[in-house]
Amino acid sequence: MMAFPGYGAGPGGVAQDPLYGYFSAVAGQDGQITADELQTCLTQSGLSGTYKPFNLETCRLMISMLDRDMSNSMGFTEFKELWQAVNGWKSTFASYDRDRSGTVEGHELQQAFTSMGYNLSPQAMTIIMNRYSLNGRITFDDFMSCCIKLRALTDQFQRRDTTRTGRAAFQYDEFIQVTMNI
Amino acid sequence: MMAFPGYGAGPGGVAQDPLYGYFSAVAGQDGQITADELQTCLTQSGLSGTYKPFNLETCRLMISMLDRDMSNSMGFTEFKELWQAVNGWKSTFASYDRDRSGTVEGHELQQAFTSMGYNLSPQAMTIIMNRYSLNGRITFDDFMSCCIKLRALTDQFQRRDTTRTGRAAFQYDEFIQVTMNI
Repeated sequence: MMAFPGYGAGPGGVAQDPLYGYFSAVAGQDGQITADELQTCLTQSGLSGTYKPFNLETCRLMISMLDRDMSNSMGFTEFKELWQAVNGWKSTFASYDRDRSGTVEGHELQQAFTSMGYNLSPQAMTIIMNRYSLNGRITFDDFMSCCIKLRALTDQFQRRDTTRTGRAAFQYDEFIQVTMNI
Repeated sequence: MMAFPGYGAGPGGVAQDPLYGYFSAVAGQDGQITADELQTCLTQSGLSGTYKPFNLETCRLMISMLDRDMSNSMGFTEFKELWQAVNGWKSTFASYDRDRSGTVEGHELQQAFTSMGYNLSPQAMTIIMNRYSLNGRITFDDFMSCCIKLRALTDQFQRRDTTRTGRAAFQYDEFIQVTMNI
């Protein structure tokens, strides 16, 4: 509790949050976790359920996506935000993975994205399928990568599409910053 | 040789190219290789040298980057183009990995990018280091991913920056196509 001296006393504080137990067990005194600690944390919280635990590459991506202060680590607030998003995506994935094979098909991926509010062209879907599918199927881990990237990229795009015309301009260095982060 | 009936006869044809041996051994009759076949191919050609062979994720990225016809596979022409690029990046990496640890440091990564003609801000370098380093060092495999992505993204950006002002505009779907491919 050293890292959050102002919290943890009253009801509803972080001490009451079951997620805080998983987080604080790996975070140590600085209250921050790195990619390998995030992997431990997500595995111990049982978030993947019956699916394979997240691989380290996916965890590195998760840290990058939410790393607003460029510290290369994650505090409890970001962890909680991540946990909620991942939990929602897991439910979506599970609703399409009806045979519990741990994979979904291309047309199911498209339905999942539509249900999340993304309206992508068939060409964009083909690119995503080609990039992420193995034998025409998408694993849980790759599905998570897709969701994380799509959310972060859409967010970055919308910040620059201030007039909501569906068009945004980037400086080269800024474009590299946004895209090399994913 | 079934897939290239017009080639292979005269000197300088693909039959003379030592790379064609590695390629045709895995390509089969359609003359195309998929990500796992590319991994076999690159490993057998000895391209990684004393470095760890490329992981499957890196090979999937390589296929996507060069997959102009969106077939999710690679022909011999693209394979050769890839091999040459990767070979150049390997030499650059090796020149900075002086102790042959299989890793380079952040400032060496920056020097490598500069030597390749990329002029990135300190902020972009921090983002790339945070995303790709493990304990402050970049492995050969992650270095390759960085080079592949940086080349593809710069190429996509420049195609849209037709007036060479360092600024480019994207439609949302187009932005997703370009960025979700990496």
